[in-house]
Formats: sequence, structure tokens, C-alpha cells
Amino acid sequence: MKIRVIEPVISKTLEGTSLEELSPIARPDTELSAVSLDAGPASIESTYEAALAAPHVVAKIVEAQKDGVDAVISNCMDDPGVEAAREWVSIPVIGPAETSMHIATMLGHRFSIIGVLEADERPFQDHARKAGLEDRLASVRAINIPVLELEDRTKAVRALVEQSVKAVQEDGAHVIIFGCTGMAGMAQDVENGLREQGITDVPVIDPAKLAFKIAEALADMGLSHSKRTYPTPPEKEIVGY
Amino acid sequence: MKIRVIEPVISKTLEGTSLEELSPIARPDTELSAVSLDAGPASIESTYEAALAAPHVVAKIVEAQKDGVDAVISNCMDDPGVEAAREWVSIPVIGPAETSMHIATMLGHRFSIIGVLEADERPFQDHARKAGLEDRLASVRAINIPVLELEDRTKAVRALVEQSVKAVQEDGAHVIIFGCTGMAGMAQDVENGLREQGITDVPVIDPAKLAFKIAEALADMGLSHSKRTYPTPPEKEIVGY
Amino acid sequence: MKIRVIEPVISKTLEGTSLEELSPIARPDTELSAVSLDAGPASIESTYEAALAAPHVVAKIVEAQKDGVDAVISNCMDDPGVEAAREWVSIPVIGPAETSMHIATMLGHRFSIIGVLEADERPFQDHARKAGLEDRLASVRAINIPVLELEDRTKAVRALVEQSVKAVQEDGAHVIIFGCTGMAGMAQDVENGLREQGITDVPVIDPAKLAFKIAEALADMGLSHSKRTYPTPPEKEIVGY
Amino acid sequence: MKIRVIEPVISKTLEGTSLEELSPIARPDTELSAVSLDAGPASIESTYEAALAAPHVVAKIVEAQKDGVDAVISNCMDDPGVEAAREWVSIPVIGPAETSMHIATMLGHRFSIIGVLEADERPFQDHARKAGLEDRLASVRAINIPVLELEDRTKAVRALVEQSVKAVQEDGAHVIIFGCTGMAGMAQDVENGLREQGITDVPVIDPAKLAFKIAEALADMGLSHSKRTYPTPPEKEIVGY
Amino acid sequence: MKIRVIEPVISKTLEGTSLEELSPIARPDTELSAVSLDAGPASIESTYEAALAAPHVVAKIVEAQKDGVDAVISNCMDDPGVEAAREWVSIPVIGPAETSMHIATMLGHRFSIIGVLEADERPFQDHARKAGLEDRLASVRAINIPVLELEDRTKAVRALVEQSVKAVQEDGAHVIIFGCTGMAGMAQDVENGLREQGITDVPVIDPAKLAFKIAEALADMGLSHSKRTYPTPPEKEIVGY
Amino acid sequence: MKIRVIEPVISKTLEGTSLEELSPIARPDTELSAVSLDAGPASIESTYEAALAAPHVVAKIVEAQKDGVDAVISNCMDDPGVEAAREWVSIPVIGPAETSMHIATMLGHRFSIIGVLEADERPFQDHARKAGLEDRLASVRAINIPVLELEDRTKAVRALVEQSVKAVQEDGAHVIIFGCTGMAGMAQDVENGLREQGITDVPVIDPAKLAFKIAEALADMGLSHSKRTYPTPPEKEIVGY
Repeated sequence: MKIRVIEPVISKTLEGTSLEELSPIARPDTELSAVSLDAGPASIESTYEAALAAPHVVAKIVEAQKDGVDAVISNCMDDPGVEAAREWVSIPVIGPAETSMHIATMLGHRFSIIGVLEADERPFQDHARKAGLEDRLASVRAINIPVLELEDRTKAVRALVEQSVKAVQEDGAHVIIFGCTGMAGMAQDVENGLREQGITDVPVIDPAKLAFKIAEALADMGLSHSKRTYPTPPEKEIVGY
Repeated sequence: MKIRVIEPVISKTLEGTSLEELSPIARPDTELSAVSLDAGPASIESTYEAALAAPHVVAKIVEAQKDGVDAVISNCMDDPGVEAAREWVSIPVIGPAETSMHIATMLGHRFSIIGVLEADERPFQDHARKAGLEDRLASVRAINIPVLELEDRTKAVRALVEQSVKAVQEDGAHVIIFGCTGMAGMAQDVENGLREQGITDVPVIDPAKLAFKIAEALADMGLSHSKRTYPTPPEKEIVGY
Repeated sequence: MKIRVIEPVISKTLEGTSLEELSPIARPDTELSAVSLDAGPASIESTYEAALAAPHVVAKIVEAQKDGVDAVISNCMDDPGVEAAREWVSIPVIGPAETSMHIATMLGHRFSIIGVLEADERPFQDHARKAGLEDRLASVRAINIPVLELEDRTKAVRALVEQSVKAVQEDGAHVIIFGCTGMAGMAQDVENGLREQGITDVPVIDPAKLAFKIAEALADMGLSHSKRTYPTPPEKEIVGY
Repeated sequence: MKIRVIEPVISKTLEGTSLEELSPIARPDTELSAVSLDAGPASIESTYEAALAAPHVVAKIVEAQKDGVDAVISNCMDDPGVEAAREWVSIPVIGPAETSMHIATMLGHRFSIIGVLEADERPFQDHARKAGLEDRLASVRAINIPVLELEDRTKAVRALVEQSVKAVQEDGAHVIIFGCTGMAGMAQDVENGLREQGITDVPVIDPAKLAFKIAEALADMGLSHSKRTYPTPPEKEIVGY
Repeated sequence: MKIRVIEPVISKTLEGTSLEELSPIARPDTELSAVSLDAGPASIESTYEAALAAPHVVAKIVEAQKDGVDAVISNCMDDPGVEAAREWVSIPVIGPAETSMHIATMLGHRFSIIGVLEADERPFQDHARKAGLEDRLASVRAINIPVLELEDRTKAVRALVEQSVKAVQEDGAHVIIFGCTGMAGMAQDVENGLREQGITDVPVIDPAKLAFKIAEALADMGLSHSKRTYPTPPEKEIVGY
Repeated sequence: MKIRVIEPVISKTLEGTSLEELSPIARPDTELSAVSLDAGPASIESTYEAALAAPHVVAKIVEAQKDGVDAVISNCMDDPGVEAAREWVSIPVIGPAETSMHIATMLGHRFSIIGVLEADERPFQDHARKAGLEDRLASVRAINIPVLELEDRTKAVRALVEQSVKAVQEDGAHVIIFGCTGMAGMAQDVENGLREQGITDVPVIDPAKLAFKIAEALADMGLSHSKRTYPTPPEKEIVGY
């Protein structure tokens, strides 16, 4: 089975990160690839940047289907281009935000999302509303570290633990979701940090990993999006893409 | 006061149509302008095409603010680029879908949206959900005439009347909203058509006109979007725009 | 165009206040009038007082339509008599509470209402629920100054700023709505007060002004309430009115 | 225990009807009384008429408390004056609409309300929304017989059975609620009518009777409304009441 | 009229407690009985224990109907076996949780439930969700006293007052509901305790008593659950019961 | 990785069916087992039968954890015992109903569930409500074939196709979910049947298979339920289990 991670940014570094983080949990027969965009933003921290990425994410997903890929992930917690791409392909297109909110609802009473910037609140609330899960969203909190500085993992984990503790103790969260796929691979460390603060009963969802495993599961079943929900757009003149 | 209509498509024709339809209802001191996009789709009939338009809509709205415009409309019932643009400007950015759903809720019990294609159902449902108005949306119906063929007004009005009657009689609609700003100027004819079928008590909302009047009203009051909801994105590298 | 403000109280003073506050933002061709009630309460601070006002508000609105008025406002944040009046007239009947909640939802993520008394909580929650916007209502706060003492504007503005700051910082409000139309004309001062406290990104809605501008906009479009939602009541014996 | 039924209309006939219908199901120690209004409408078939009744309902409820009554019912399916009256008294004030929707939700999956006129749809939807039960309301249907003609019981029952069958078979209702307290005493006949059509599994709620029994139950427990929700209005000048 | 309280636990003590607490508020002609289970848990403080009780609750309710009982209560705030039992009998089966949430919504703006253990949060949230009342549930709080230690009434009342005060002051509750039927008979003492803290406007619901009075009221009316919602299960092989 | 399917019925036949249907889609390193109950019902077609099964499902799940199993499924579309079991174990406990509703929401606009009997409507509505997805549930339909007669696959598939077509054409379903895990293995045939009727754009979810794949995915990630949501019950006396 072929799974491809679309990094919805121009940085090539993320391709390596995804392969590194996801390979250890891949099924033995999963062939994993990752591609960044040819055009778009360096990182996504606003609806504007998600909008810049979306057309190019769709192009990469169309290409993936042509390459025989069985399922793709748009690897950002704003799910950029996910709905648009579903209109063009028949393979599953997984959005980490949508996926982690649904699975979090299955795992616990209420979840908090710990994102990078305070500006994340509206988009995450809107994602929750679209999914019907707004009353399960305990809070959106921010570590106030930009995406491109997440590579200082020690600092990022420390801030994630700090905000996760507040989410649990002040906002009533029973599940934590990372608000950025750039936090991939930090869940174990954050769970450890929570345990040091006496919180041993709250799962931490790494959306990049979860989206990948759900992509595998759907591909395995031959299950994909409803083309009645996402019909193919009519052909027409397009300029600039 | 300066109001600018952003036509989120590459066709220049729509600029003239908007000026023609909106000028008669403009305030005496309103200076109205309309601009199409330099790049993007010929028309918007899918989430994909809305995604193609969005980055270029934002650019035109940023330009409008620089030109001293007091309020802008992204003139399409998918509200393309509206939220992204609000992040970059401080003037009101009006989306016809959002606006007409809220005003329709004030005018009647439940509303139906009569769009161009059946594919409109999911995006309109999602817009309603984001607005909190999903239980006010009686139905989404389609006239099955592509946007670019709406210029045959007789045919379009006939189809709009037919679907509106069904929306009222079968779906329980108390208000009709046009599902495409390309239907601008047809409301009076559709109301006449409804009257011929004995339906005299259902208002028909022309979202292009309504969005324009709400833009005027907000600009008049100096009222705009919350920058706490739509904070300015951080500066970063962007390729291809 | 003729717009009439119905002051749903017996005090004649409010007529002058409305004319003074609204005239500066009226369109050049808007003919503005204001009338108080012949019978009813001195001010509205409870559901009981709104109930006392409602029959007389309807009478004044029926009279307005006979006078050729194009749109009316029931100028109180409990929207007294609004739905009942819509049953008798075909012109738009605007309620400031309903209007400001819908527009606030368009302007920002969540709004708080700053009312006069703590007793406002239930009625505002119920208005939000009826509008489908209860999860957008961050909080209802009170300045604890009765309506008839709002004329001490310095005191009122200071209290409004104090509660607005709390609404933003403690309740997560992104937009502020005044909870009483007697606060008309204070929005600029409250925004200034917020700015002094470092809050520069939160719009303040003056519902009296907003309702007036929306009345103008709807009248301009010839758009009014659905008579299918608000059918004319059958004739019957009525005693005491 | 003393229970008083407030007939929110000027007709004195209803007093007798209520005593006749409710006495057979009253507790042995319940002292039942009924009073009509001194001013108001002959019947309530619109929000307007409910508004005319409300101030006078409140007066009768205040009087009831002074008379040592333990609980009152505002005997109309629009619950006129119920919330306003709760602000002035400490005894339970029961609204048949609110009560029957909550109990119906306990008894079955979804309920339909069979009212007198089509105009009932919006007010019942709004009552359901305020109660949080809008997705339990399968439909609102009308028998198209005015309140004052319900005395032709054979005709009324026949029409109620006809609409109830449709509510069950077409709208998926599992419980039927009468939409007018003027239908008091017809539930058994309607259940018989349903049985003749093969529908044996759908309870029919007579809101006048249910409201009365719930009034008894609350009075028995000494349980009443929250004065934190319904605080006493401040004293002020009132003209015309 | 015969009402039977099913104690969904193996302890026989509760039978006496129920008779003692409920008899004083019973109607003169009510014949009250109480039965515990033959098998099941000693108390219910988890979904697991409610699951253990449910099959045996159903058996006792089937037996009650055979004994000519007119209505039954499953006397625990998790409503164990209530829906399953409704499938087998035609008499009303009352759940204290469902009942008290609906009545609390009628009595005030928002309610808090004060339960025994923190583990109660999810089940009460789920009960509220099923009832459609989740946005009326201000909070779930715990006194951290196990059910079987509630017999120390002084301690229990003190803890209930403490948590009720917090529910009112910090969570915005307007009505308090006891989260355990083992707290039966403590409402008056808790209201007294609240009054000592200056809170005089918040009713306290004793779910055991309320469920009993609602059972009487429904039995009096001959009103029961919809068998369309709760159809009789098909006969089949069952092992172990 | 070890996955165990708990068949919540006494029939041993289902163990074989599950192994046969799930093995082909199992990961190469998945060790699959299936166990039926020692006591309980022959099949589950009511809330009553789900209640009979629940205690024994919990016992089997506790046993599974002791056996080193990594994730379990309670293999019935009423998710019997799922929440109770989560209180006792730390491994993921998957409910097919909860899982398939969440994944269906990710795959399409609205889903219908095609169950065995009409009695399924309430429980599925309640499951949807608990998940927050009630407005995504287009309809619940029944094939009117008891669980134990599903072995006539030709008849079952024909009935499933018939109801699925109606769900799509009359109820607006974009995704179909089987309402019984006894329908495992029929999805491909139903999709073929839909295709013959011209419906090529609607995915069909086989909940037994989906639950199994999600169990694998969660076990792979070491992700399980929140013990803050599902805390371990206190020890106490239990009789009869």
C-alpha cells in the first residue's frame, strides 16, 4: 500500500521529518512518501496561508493519485485543500484536524487543542463546528512558538506540557490534541511531562501520526470519500495555475 | 463612501454586471467600483475553484484598502477568500453567503438556497453550520444551469421559480436565497413568478444586492471585523504569489 | 425613505435622544422620526416590562405603516413587540437584539453583551437560542446601572469599559454588544476606554445605531419579513386595547 | 392544595370547561379554580394575541398568589405571560407548551404538535428551540379549525385524528401533543381514532391536563422557579395597566 | 394508585429509606412500595455498576407490572435499566436523571448536578446530551463521599452546600440537582445552608422525590411511554438470566 | 499485535464469521481472535438485549486485557458494554456504532444507517446524539430481517440495496452504514447493487470491518481511552456476577 504525506509548505525539510516520524509506526507493507509544495507559504499559521497552500496541495494530491498512491494526508492542522482535493480524486484524502477531533471524541469526554499561536482559536472552533463537535472542544490554547521554531524540541515540549496541564486543570480537557503537525513525535514526551505533574489519565494525540494510521486503515478497506458529497468540478478556463 | 465589489473570477464581464445591478440601489454618496481577478477560475462551482480564487481575492482586497475603499464584497456565494482577507485588512469584508443566511434568519422561519448545481449542497450546509444556522436551512436546491449560462435570464428565472416553489411547498421554506451572485437582478422576476403560482408571502433574497447594502451600512457606522478573531498573519517567505 | 424609531416606553425624552444619535449616520434622503408609547413602562428591565410595552409597540408600528413609513425599529434590547408587529405589517420591523447578535456573529468569533442589570442574562440567552447563536454568546455582563440613570454618561462609559475588559479577558469575547439601546452613542468612548487598557482589536456594537442602519438597508432593497412566517392574525373580539 | 387555571382570554366559558375537564383527574385534596381575563383577546391564535393577553395574565397570577394559591397554569399553548409572571411571584407558574414538550421528550423519540392554524409553526418551533428540544419536534400540523369553533368536538376530533395519523406516518412522530388547550378532553377520543387506523403505540398528550398534574406535583414538593433566573423587576412608573 | 420504587442495588436498607422519605409527600390514595435487587452491585458509582444492575432492574419492573403497579421509578441518577424496561412494560418507567434535568430546565436558566464522585461527569453530560439539554448543564460537581457513606447526613449536607455554593457562584447555576438518589431528604437542609451563605434564589431538586411525584402525575393521567419508541423485543434464547 | 473481537451473544457461530471476514483485511502481524459470551442473548435487537449482554461483554474484555490483547471490539451496532468496559481496562475498546458514525462524517455529508428492525431508530438516534452527529444522520431504515436470518445473504443483500437506494434518493444519504455487524462482508455486494441502480458515488461502511481496522490503528499508536473520562470503579460487593 502506498501512502503519501503532502507537506502543504515549500520547505523540503518537512518531508524528511514526516518519513522519520511515521516510518516506525507504518505497517510492514506500507510504502510511505512525502512531498512538499512547489509554491505556497513557508509555514501555515493563518487562514491566509492555508489559502495560499490549498491550490498547490490539490495539485500534489492529483499527482499522487496518478502515481498510484492509495491515500494521502494534507499534513497541517488547518486541513488545507482537503475538501477541494476530494473533488478531484477518488482515493481517501485525510485531514489531521478533522481526523483527530473525531477520534478524540471517541477517546474521551472533551478535548483541548494546543496550537502554536493564539490566532488558532477561530479556525479550530470552525473546524469543530463543521464536524458537529464544538461542545466537545474544551479549549484552544497556544504555546506561542512559531511553527518554524518548533525544531527546538525541548522548548516546545516544555511549553506543550505547560499548556496541556492548564487545559486539563482549568478547562476540563480529558484528551489533548496537538494543534500543529510540526509537533509530530512529541506526544510521548508530553505524556511523560504530564505524568511528572501527576496527570496520568489523559491521552495525547499526535495528529500527524493519527492521520497516517487512519489513512492506512481506510486504504486497507478500500473505503473513500463520498463522490456525492465531493463531485468532480466541471471543466472550465483557469488562469495562473 | 467607497465600496468595491471583488468578482472572484477572471471574467471581466461581471464587473459591468455588478455596476449595473447595484448602482440603482446605491446611496447617493456611494462610489461603487468592481474588479475581477488577474488569475483564477472562469466561474466558481466547486470548493476547488473557490480555493483557486481565494489567494487572488485576498490580493484584490488588500489593494482595495490601499485605494481607500471603505468596504469590500467577495462577490460569490462561496465567500471565497473572505476569512483570509479579514486577516490582512481592517475594513469590512462581506461574504454574500454568510450575510444572506443571517439576514434570512431575521426575516423568516427557515430558508432554502437555490443554487446552480447539486454539488452546492455540502458547501452551503457547511456555511450554515459555521454560522450556527443549520436548522434554519430548509433545503439546498439546484437549477442545473452552469454559472456561465445564467445570462439566458428567461431560462434562469423560470428554473429559479420552479425550484423556489418546490422549496416552499415540499421543504417548508419561508425565505428564498439565490445560491449564486450571478443571479443578481432576478429577485423581482422570481417573486413575480412565485406570485403567479399563488405564493405571495415568501421574500426572495438577492445576495449580491444584500451584501452590498450591508457593506454600506457597516461602512457608515465605522464597524468592522474583530481583529482578535482575524489577527494579522506573521511575515514569512511565500513562493509563487 | 422614512424610518421610524419606536421607543417602547412612556418617556418622551428618548425620542429626542434617538433623533440626536441617529441623524448623524442617516443617509441624506432618510426621513427619521421617533415616537414613544402612550401607555407602558417608564423603562424596560424585565420580561414583565417588555410584556407591558409589547401591545402598545404593535399599535405604534401599525400606525407607522399607515403613515407611509418604510421600516421601523422597536428600540430596546428585548425586541418588545417585534414578532407580534410583524404579523400586522408588511414593512420591516427591526429588533436591535436579534440584529446585533447576527451581525456580531459575522464580525467575530464570540460576543459578549454588556447590559444594565444581572437579570438580563436569561432573556439574552433566550434571544441567542432563538437565533441559533447561543454558542457564540461568550457572556452576559451587567454594569448595574438602571436604564433611567444612564444619562450620567461618564459613569456609564466607565462601567461599560470595566465590564467589556472583563468580557474580553475572562470570557473570551471578540466583539462587544451594548445590552441597552439607552447606551446609544457611547461606543466610541468605550472603544477609546478599551484602547487605554491595551485592547485595540475588539469592535463595540451600538445596537440602536446598527438596527437603524439595517432598517435603512432593508428598506432600500424592498426586502421585508416573510408573511409565511408572520401571517396576519384572524379578526376577533378584543377588550381593553 | 390550591391550583388556579388562568384562562388567558376574555371568554368566561373556558373557566367552566377547565373545571369540568380537570376535576376528574384532580387529587382529592386539590382545590381547583379558574379565572378568565378582564381584558385581552377572545382567543389566542397569533403572537400578537398572546402579547395582548400577557399583561393581564400576569395580573391574574399576582392575584392568585395573594389568594394563597399554590401553583398556577397559563392555560394556552403559547404560554402567554408565563416568564413575566415568574418574575413577580414565588409560586410555580406552569406553561402547557413548555411542560408538554419536556414530558413528551421523556415519553418518546420525537413528537408532533397538532395545532389549530398553520400560523402555529413558528411559535412552536421557537418554544422548542428555547427548550433545547428542536430536534425532537417532528412537525407542527394544523387542523385548520379556529379555537372558538373547537366546541364542535366531533369535527375537531376527526381532524385531530387525521393530522395525527399523518404526523405518525409521514413525519415520524412517536408522541402527539395537542397544540391548543381548547382541545382539552379529546385525547381519549383521538387515541381511539388512531387505534381504528391501526396506530396503537403513540401516546397523545393533553397539555391542559398535563400542565395541571405537573402543577400539583411541583406544589406538593414545594418546588418553584429559580428567582435567580426570574428576579423581581425594579419598581417604576407604569401607565395604562 | 400503586407506585413502586425499584432500588437498583442489592442493599435492602434503601427500601426503608425510600418509604420514609417519599411517604410524607405521597398522595392520600397512593400505595407506595419499594424493592431492591436480588443480584447486582451494592451501590452505583460507575457505568459498569449501572450495567450490572440493569438486567435485574428490568426483571423487577416486569414483576411490578404483573403486580398491578401503575408506575415505577429506577431509583438511581444513572437511570439504570430505564430504557430497556420501557421495551417490556406499558406502565410509565421514570428515570430520576432524565426527569430532573427536564424539570430543572423548566425552573431555571442553567442547572448544576452535585454528585458523589468526579467520575459522574461523563455519564451526566451524556444524559444531558441525550435529552438535548447539554447547554443547560452549568457543571457537574462532586462531594467526594461514596454513596454508602451518605448516611452521615451532617457531613453530606455540609459538602452539598459547599459544592452548591461553588456551582452558583463560579459556574452560574440557577438550579441545583442532587446527583444521587441516596441524597433523598437533604434538599431542605441544603437550601437552608445556601440561605446562610446569602443564596436565597436557587431551588434544590431532590430527584428521588421529583421522580416519585412525576410518576404519580403520569399514572393519574394514564399517560405512558410511546411503544413506537420502545417496541417489545422479539422472543429469543437467553442464557444466564 | 493482538486484536480480539467480542461477540456479545451466546452463539459460537459468530466467532467463525468474524475470523473469516476480518482475516483478509488484517495486517500481516495482527493476531486475531474472537470470543462469544457465556451468558446473554442469542442476538441483540433491543436495548433490553444489549443490557443483558453488557455485563458479560465487560468480563470478556477484562479477560482479553489479561491475555495481553492490544485492542478489543464489542461486535454489535449497539456498542454493548463499551463504556462500562473502558472503566476497567486501559486498552482501546472499540464500538462499531460510534466508530462508523464518526468515520462516516469524515467521508460524506450525511449518512443513513440500514438496520435490521424498525426498533433500531431510537438507539441509533441516541448514539448519534451522544456523538454530536445527529444532524449528520439522514435516516435510520430497516430491512425487517431478524439478525439470526441474515445468513440468507442473497435476501439480505437485496433488502440492503433496496433500503440503501431509498436512503440515497429519498433521505439524502451520501454514505451508507450497515446497522448490524451481522451484515459483515456484504458491503461489496451492496455497492454492486447500488451501481446497478445507477448510484456509483455512495460509499458503504461495513462497521465490523471498520471497527477492526480502527482498533489496529489505535493499538499501533499506543493510543487509548482517557481514564479521566473512564475512571476505574471503586471496589464493592457485587452479587450474581
